[in-house]
Amino acid sequence: MTPPASTRDVGTLLEALPYIREFHGKTVVIKYGGAAMTDPALREEFARDVVLMKYVGINPIVVHGGGPDITAYMERLDLPVEFVAGLRVSDRDTVEIAKMVLVGKVNKDIVLRINRHGQPAVGLCGDDGLLFRAARKSAPGGEDIGYVGQIERVDTDVLTHVAQDYIPVVASVGADRDGNSYNINADEAAGAVARALGAYKVMFLTDVRGWLRDPSDPESVITEVTADEVEAALPTIAGGMRPKLSACIDAIHGGVSSAVIVDGRVPHSLLLELFTDAGIGTMVKPAP
Amino acid sequence: MTPPASTRDVGTLLEALPYIREFHGKTVVIKYGGAAMTDPALREEFARDVVLMKYVGINPIVVHGGGPDITAYMERLDLPVEFVAGLRVSDRDTVEIAKMVLVGKVNKDIVLRINRHGQPAVGLCGDDGLLFRAARKSAPGGEDIGYVGQIERVDTDVLTHVAQDYIPVVASVGADRDGNSYNINADEAAGAVARALGAYKVMFLTDVRGWLRDPSDPESVITEVTADEVEAALPTIAGGMRPKLSACIDAIHGGVSSAVIVDGRVPHSLLLELFTDAGIGTMVKPAP
Amino acid sequence: MTPPASTRDVGTLLEALPYIREFHGKTVVIKYGGAAMTDPALREEFARDVVLMKYVGINPIVVHGGGPDITAYMERLDLPVEFVAGLRVSDRDTVEIAKMVLVGKVNKDIVLRINRHGQPAVGLCGDDGLLFRAARKSAPGGEDIGYVGQIERVDTDVLTHVAQDYIPVVASVGADRDGNSYNINADEAAGAVARALGAYKVMFLTDVRGWLRDPSDPESVITEVTADEVEAALPTIAGGMRPKLSACIDAIHGGVSSAVIVDGRVPHSLLLELFTDAGIGTMVKPAP
Amino acid sequence: MTPPASTRDVGTLLEALPYIREFHGKTVVIKYGGAAMTDPALREEFARDVVLMKYVGINPIVVHGGGPDITAYMERLDLPVEFVAGLRVSDRDTVEIAKMVLVGKVNKDIVLRINRHGQPAVGLCGDDGLLFRAARKSAPGGEDIGYVGQIERVDTDVLTHVAQDYIPVVASVGADRDGNSYNINADEAAGAVARALGAYKVMFLTDVRGWLRDPSDPESVITEVTADEVEAALPTIAGGMRPKLSACIDAIHGGVSSAVIVDGRVPHSLLLELFTDAGIGTMVKPAP
Amino acid sequence: MTPPASTRDVGTLLEALPYIREFHGKTVVIKYGGAAMTDPALREEFARDVVLMKYVGINPIVVHGGGPDITAYMERLDLPVEFVAGLRVSDRDTVEIAKMVLVGKVNKDIVLRINRHGQPAVGLCGDDGLLFRAARKSAPGGEDIGYVGQIERVDTDVLTHVAQDYIPVVASVGADRDGNSYNINADEAAGAVARALGAYKVMFLTDVRGWLRDPSDPESVITEVTADEVEAALPTIAGGMRPKLSACIDAIHGGVSSAVIVDGRVPHSLLLELFTDAGIGTMVKPAP
Amino acid sequence: MTPPASTRDVGTLLEALPYIREFHGKTVVIKYGGAAMTDPALREEFARDVVLMKYVGINPIVVHGGGPDITAYMERLDLPVEFVAGLRVSDRDTVEIAKMVLVGKVNKDIVLRINRHGQPAVGLCGDDGLLFRAARKSAPGGEDIGYVGQIERVDTDVLTHVAQDYIPVVASVGADRDGNSYNINADEAAGAVARALGAYKVMFLTDVRGWLRDPSDPESVITEVTADEVEAALPTIAGGMRPKLSACIDAIHGGVSSAVIVDGRVPHSLLLELFTDAGIGTMVKPAP
Repeated sequence: MTPPASTRDVGTLLEALPYIREFHGKTVVIKYGGAAMTDPALREEFARDVVLMKYVGINPIVVHGGGPDITAYMERLDLPVEFVAGLRVSDRDTVEIAKMVLVGKVNKDIVLRINRHGQPAVGLCGDDGLLFRAARKSAPGGEDIGYVGQIERVDTDVLTHVAQDYIPVVASVGADRDGNSYNINADEAAGAVARALGAYKVMFLTDVRGWLRDPSDPESVITEVTADEVEAALPTIAGGMRPKLSACIDAIHGGVSSAVIVDGRVPHSLLLELFTDAGIGTMVKPAP
Repeated sequence: MTPPASTRDVGTLLEALPYIREFHGKTVVIKYGGAAMTDPALREEFARDVVLMKYVGINPIVVHGGGPDITAYMERLDLPVEFVAGLRVSDRDTVEIAKMVLVGKVNKDIVLRINRHGQPAVGLCGDDGLLFRAARKSAPGGEDIGYVGQIERVDTDVLTHVAQDYIPVVASVGADRDGNSYNINADEAAGAVARALGAYKVMFLTDVRGWLRDPSDPESVITEVTADEVEAALPTIAGGMRPKLSACIDAIHGGVSSAVIVDGRVPHSLLLELFTDAGIGTMVKPAP
Repeated sequence: MTPPASTRDVGTLLEALPYIREFHGKTVVIKYGGAAMTDPALREEFARDVVLMKYVGINPIVVHGGGPDITAYMERLDLPVEFVAGLRVSDRDTVEIAKMVLVGKVNKDIVLRINRHGQPAVGLCGDDGLLFRAARKSAPGGEDIGYVGQIERVDTDVLTHVAQDYIPVVASVGADRDGNSYNINADEAAGAVARALGAYKVMFLTDVRGWLRDPSDPESVITEVTADEVEAALPTIAGGMRPKLSACIDAIHGGVSSAVIVDGRVPHSLLLELFTDAGIGTMVKPAP
Repeated sequence: MTPPASTRDVGTLLEALPYIREFHGKTVVIKYGGAAMTDPALREEFARDVVLMKYVGINPIVVHGGGPDITAYMERLDLPVEFVAGLRVSDRDTVEIAKMVLVGKVNKDIVLRINRHGQPAVGLCGDDGLLFRAARKSAPGGEDIGYVGQIERVDTDVLTHVAQDYIPVVASVGADRDGNSYNINADEAAGAVARALGAYKVMFLTDVRGWLRDPSDPESVITEVTADEVEAALPTIAGGMRPKLSACIDAIHGGVSSAVIVDGRVPHSLLLELFTDAGIGTMVKPAP
Repeated sequence: MTPPASTRDVGTLLEALPYIREFHGKTVVIKYGGAAMTDPALREEFARDVVLMKYVGINPIVVHGGGPDITAYMERLDLPVEFVAGLRVSDRDTVEIAKMVLVGKVNKDIVLRINRHGQPAVGLCGDDGLLFRAARKSAPGGEDIGYVGQIERVDTDVLTHVAQDYIPVVASVGADRDGNSYNINADEAAGAVARALGAYKVMFLTDVRGWLRDPSDPESVITEVTADEVEAALPTIAGGMRPKLSACIDAIHGGVSSAVIVDGRVPHSLLLELFTDAGIGTMVKPAP
Repeated sequence: MTPPASTRDVGTLLEALPYIREFHGKTVVIKYGGAAMTDPALREEFARDVVLMKYVGINPIVVHGGGPDITAYMERLDLPVEFVAGLRVSDRDTVEIAKMVLVGKVNKDIVLRINRHGQPAVGLCGDDGLLFRAARKSAPGGEDIGYVGQIERVDTDVLTHVAQDYIPVVASVGADRDGNSYNINADEAAGAVARALGAYKVMFLTDVRGWLRDPSDPESVITEVTADEVEAALPTIAGGMRPKLSACIDAIHGGVSSAVIVDGRVPHSLLLELFTDAGIGTMVKPAP
């Protein structure tokens, strides 16, 4: 008797069982961005991956930025686009546009895609339920870069309330006590959310293969490293990897069990990371 | 012995008691717009009024549009602004901009103001938790006006869930089953929400004194009228009053106890309407 | 356009907002007595004030005595009325009559008035649900004054259970382990209840303007004082102010945030104290 | 081997098992009065019986009057005691005294006794939580007998709330919408409470052996009868048995499964009736 | 860039998503038996399949018999093994042995295997929590076959209570009101449980490929059929397929949405049936 | 007037009241065995006693072994029955048979009897819900006695979950992490369960009158003793009393308030011990 063709396929479901067991009931924060957010095929896969996570009993929280969309709108409006040390110089008008794009466009696109794949999502930003309280951040060199914020406080009530029945999707903007809005780095926001929630894991989707020992050699991925080792190396790191590694350190020091930098260009990178032994990218762990 | 100066003032708190009793535990949907949303002083008062409603045990739900802000951004982007029979002709780009403005700017401004007055708010749009399912609407004359939608279905789960701990603020946009977004008239959205929730009351804030018997005479306000009487008169009504009265009829026929058109230019018009006998504007009631 | 006459009045509702915010969800114990209990107009106002407190989310607990009514019945029955150091000399018959008057007349009058103003109340005494366990108290000079009791233990279960849905009204009588009933000073009972519940505030309604620096000068009210300062002065204080101040000290030392002696002859003194800056009477606070 | 002396005694516990099974989780209303309330030994036994009922999972509700105590106080106050057709003629002063005696003395005596036997009780009257709404009743002959009331409405919320954790003890007085208090016949009150609660059983403690076929022959007890048979005989019945039988009919017609008139002079008559086959007194049942 | 080898495998997880969505929160009853229970490899797979079902939010209930193990013990004890019309002739001794084998051996083996794969199971039989009330069944020809029972009543309380936190595993034995135990056909038990629970699906694991149009042709599997069609054909069906089809009819008529006869010899037949389009075996559906 | 014959009997119910009060809401673990399990009359009485305990608000947990039944089946199967130091030498086949007898016969007989007396029971063994994790135990002399286990861990979740609505009946078998089953001494199991649950009392039913000062004198029962005194005497004690006393010590040291060895041959020994002063058997208490 020949088994039906799909028996082998169903078997792969069971290979995920030990991982499903591990993550069942756990909170996993996902910093969403890069190709996984811009490539039409990858972003559908991302939504399906998140929905599957919810179905198998994981509590996924999506945190996102949206720099390219902001820049595109700035250019349509003939406004200058300027960065200092990787931070967008933000006058009031820039922040208003950034917030509209992140909250009113990028966030709802993610919400709609997750909805369509079968689990209802709810979009939030730092203003909703006082989720983030922000404060002005200075640029490394001390320049005035305007309304660029850091997170002073995360009030997790609204997240845990919404996450009971929905997948929360969080846009990384927030306001200070006086109601002024700020651009917030989405890696930093994801790290802060993971820390405040006592999440089990935080994952940063990027467009590189991980943290490279030799930035010029894409094969030199560091697959596992302690937070202390990252902290020691941080002064030598520049570019987009720096806020990611910094957020990893923060999360681990705040009690998160693991922080992973994942290559979002790989289809199903979330599921590969969660449900297989195939370590993709760089995992930051507490000191042993 | 002379009583302190404020005794008389405190007494006015108690004049509100019979009304507080009536509305305690009840859901009141508020269509927010007009001067109450644009005038800086009035919008602070609006936020305080809504916060007070929550504190005295009412369940307020705010629904809003934001036409002037949308038009302003359309103009900044050198895009044509066109209306047919009061409906904004909306190609994909227009809807995207409208949604960004409503959800990412207007909605969060309201949320932040309510937060600052002491009750946390959460902003939602029709996409969140599948709140609205929209469908394309035709213009009265049959012209193609693009992505202008009507509400086919309201899923109140997300609203009742959020309203347990927060004041929900709803931007009137929504998507169809395929994920296409639509502009939705905010009066219609408020009426649909009130009906779906079985609200006790729905209030429409406007910039006129109510429904006028003689449109040229601002003193000719009709203070009370049945839904059937409004329905009979509807074919003769044009302009912005039409969708409001139409939403009143829908709400009343769907079981809402009263629908009121309120002059939002009057400070504290919400509280005056709820907590005093001073009928302001036009109240639509079921047939006796 | 002239705003309706009542706009100003509604504005006063909003002046109470910061105070409503402060007291929302908090337990406030009110020792009820004096003119506020005997004057027909004041006692209606008292009931309305308490009902309003409940509606705006405060948890009010009323504790009362009723000396004048007891004396009146004693006299109708031709029984001797005798006091030692302000304590009613109480043989078994006196206690039985006092208990009947307090529990069966005064308490139910309060309950009915609160009911009529729109929130259901439930009357309790120290016997119900073992609320108070009393023990015999000696007069300061050591005379036998009979069944005058002090509170050894407060079992708050019945109060918190009843307060979920009702306004509890507590008559200050109680029994010992053997079932003997005792007169209990109502100020002491209110202080003990506030302490046992970890109340936010306890208020004592009196017929004076507060604690006077110079008892002969009604203008010499001490508006704010620490519990330690009161304790130091206590040996020099006599009359009805003594048990009130003593109960204030007990409450503050037991964790209550503030204890206030309020002039109950002023209409709405409860609301004035809670909802305005007009400090009326004397507030006892913890040492700073 | 000789079993210990108490083996036989413990065996009798088990004889109650089938009855405990039947009544477990059921509400039983007990009209308390007569010798069981005045005889010192019997009233201790009553309290123990009720406490045992609670321990074995029954939900007992005690309803009581207290005519003899009221009369005694009326006489101490030199007030006239007058009855018309078994109803106490009640001016305002009489009602005030009756209420004080019932609520402040009789009720709390019962509460304290039940407390002492190991289950906390809470005393209530018709005013508490709006339990009874009363209306003036006319005497059969139409005479004005003053504030004698009948029950128009029972609001069971407060009873079911209190009965979760306590044994409710209800004094049969109540007020009308305007706050006027009334004497209410306790048999009638017990029947109304049983009916409103959908009780399983209502028991009336009396000082006779039951309903007698021949009033002059104490051996002529009718042990079981249908409500219809009682109704047919009612016009021929006078005296204290009439309101009891009338309350039985009301209860049965309102859905109570059985109504029993029990000889309260017999020690443990409650337990005998509930837990043995020894039918004591008269049981009224629905028509078969 | 080459994706890791396992990307394709993870993709198959997502192919199950539409099915996981369909079955999430649903109760699925599984009649376990045949090769899937005797083959060492298949029974491990079965346990993993059931555990995975639980992890993805399905509520699986396992019902089992164990004929071969019973026969083996009968033979070890030199007892006669006799069947009439497929029913085991069962004197008291036979039933006692059958019950010991099913409840004390087969059931606990299943429980232990499910435990080891990561979800705790609890074994039950018809006696536990009065799950089944059985009655004696006659053989088709009227012979006395002893203690062979049919299920008169299923009390689902214990199942729903246990299923909140555990996977229930039910051995198909039960007792009558007098405490006599009976052998019960496990197919019948599974159908009765599915019906009583209002299950979404009931699956019968067998050692054939389904219901064959031509019993001699294993390729002639009927893949889908209505309950009415099965009912019409039932008189012509003999052997082990008959009780299965009969149980399918009962389940469908009792409101279960689908009943499936599945080839348990195929590895992961449960998951294949639930999570793929590869219809294996015969599905009985309600009439369209 | 002569009271009915049963008045005296009902009175004995009330003699139990102080004890019912003491044990209400408490967990009592009962090791069931000996004559109380084999004598037909005694085992009916046992079931009634346990049901009565449940009805009066006690939480009874029954733990049992079943040596004689196991031996009987071993002999029917011509298998050798061998003991070393009171422990049954157990190869795999012996354990399988023991488990079948305990779980599939003895346990369900107890469950059915308790069911019939009016409270539903649920039978469990150490496998269900991972209740016991066992490990191999060595005989005192170091001989290999096979699959005789000791309890390493009790997971009380399944017991407390089941005990909410049912009387749990636990057979003393369990498995290790690899799924190997073990015979476990039932006295040890009862002690471990009592300790893990923080039970109020554990009772061991035996066929002797208690712990005898002089084993040859049945009148020399030690009625009360501290755990420390027992521990000191333990090395001198042999036979079946040893595991019982050892389990008593364990329970007391683990926080159980009292451990009692009860003569199960006395009818209603459970109730006599719980509900009368007639101390029967030996009570082990913590050091004073």
